Amino acid sequence: MSDIDNGRRLRAVDDGLLRRREAIADLGDALRLLIENATATEAPTEELIRAAERIRRAAAPLGERVRGRFESAAADDLLGGVRLYNPVTGAGSAFAPPLEISREDGLAVGTCTLGLAFEGPPSYAHGGVSAMLLDQMLGYAVSVSGHPGMTGRLDTAYRRPVPLHTPLRLTAEVAAIEGRRVTATGTIATADEPGEVLVEATGVFVALRAEQAQRLFGPVIGRNRESRAG
Amino acid sequence: MSDIDNGRRLRAVDDGLLRRREAIADLGDALRLLIENATATEAPTEELIRAAERIRRAAAPLGERVRGRFESAAADDLLGGVRLYNPVTGAGSAFAPPLEISREDGLAVGTCTLGLAFEGPPSYAHGGVSAMLLDQMLGYAVSVSGHPGMTGRLDTAYRRPVPLHTPLRLTAEVAAIEGRRVTATGTIATADEPGEVLVEATGVFVALRAEQAQRLFGPVIGRNRESRAG
Repeated sequence: MSDIDNGRRLRAVDDGLLRRREAIADLGDALRLLIENATATEAPTEELIRAAERIRRAAAPLGERVRGRFESAAADDLLGGVRLYNPVTGAGSAFAPPLEISREDGLAVGTCTLGLAFEGPPSYAHGGVSAMLLDQMLGYAVSVSGHPGMTGRLDTAYRRPVPLHTPLRLTAEVAAIEGRRVTATGTIATADEPGEVLVEATGVFVALRAEQAQRLFGPVIGRNRESRAG
Repeated sequence: MSDIDNGRRLRAVDDGLLRRREAIADLGDALRLLIENATATEAPTEELIRAAERIRRAAAPLGERVRGRFESAAADDLLGGVRLYNPVTGAGSAFAPPLEISREDGLAVGTCTLGLAFEGPPSYAHGGVSAMLLDQMLGYAVSVSGHPGMTGRLDTAYRRPVPLHTPLRLTAEVAAIEGRRVTATGTIATADEPGEVLVEATGVFVALRAEQAQRLFGPVIGRNRESRAG
């Protein structure tokens, strides 16, 4: 194959991949809309029964070809950090608000708004949702510091409840690096009152040794190699 | 209205309510199937695009009549502890595995199996998902002890990653009650190896004073009173 042919082939693959990623993100948007409507609905019971039928019909063709636990999604790029189905940040995840994270002067800053699907105490976010958002924020700060690791501890302090339907601002930063252990801290506030901390967390993330990574992720790494070779 | 007529009317209301709760739980099942299929699918991109259209069509009628942030669902019973949309245990929640909790000799025991939608590190649950499950477990133990409260702290220690597609067994119990503060502890293990703790948590739950409850939940309580009177 000439370099030009090879270039065309790669270009075609990239276009297909980009189109698939867009379709996955759009499907994610549709799922998030559906979930919020299904959580908030006071439509008549007959309408709920019809919706369940429609949803099962939409689900069936998607279920005809599915990956297993040890296969990563074809549209993902694990080593490149593309995780379309991450349940906090993934554009394709029905669970993700999604939380959008960027870097501002060494600080990780996240934004999201939580709908009724995230409700714990009436009109506020479930305490576990706050922990989940903060785990992701801290993991991001740890990862961009160049010392990625798995969550070892996550200590969360709840000062005030986190309101639903309200733009939120989250922060995270690395506080200390000691060998394989990185400590990070983070906060949740509303975008309107960023100085008023509602929830704060301290997390310890631990870098895996090579043999740990192999033991935990060996099956996934092996599958990815197979599918690329195939 | 005679007592007999009144009895018939209440009976009709109950039948309608039970039927609605069943429809909500069935819609929840359909949503969970859809989300798992949409997360795991390797169907062609065209199929994803068609699915998004179908999902938006299913979502529209549900969105025609929705409750707001300060209204609880008509099918819920806040004081009776019926929360169909709780994002961890709710039969109607698309996010809930759902976690099923029961009491065994003073210990709260939870069971669930997590699909690919809950994935963090490849083939394992997101660390935040474990925190969310444990927050719910601890809150349950605290609540059935007769001292319900809001999460004040949740300290989570991750010993080993939590596998997806594997039946899990969670536990929680109250460790100490000091005035308005209740401390509870909990664990996550697999059902096959319940003695091998994967994640453990200690939480402090704080009972609200009357004025705090009024400040936080006044708008919800007010709305519920209005809708019952109306």
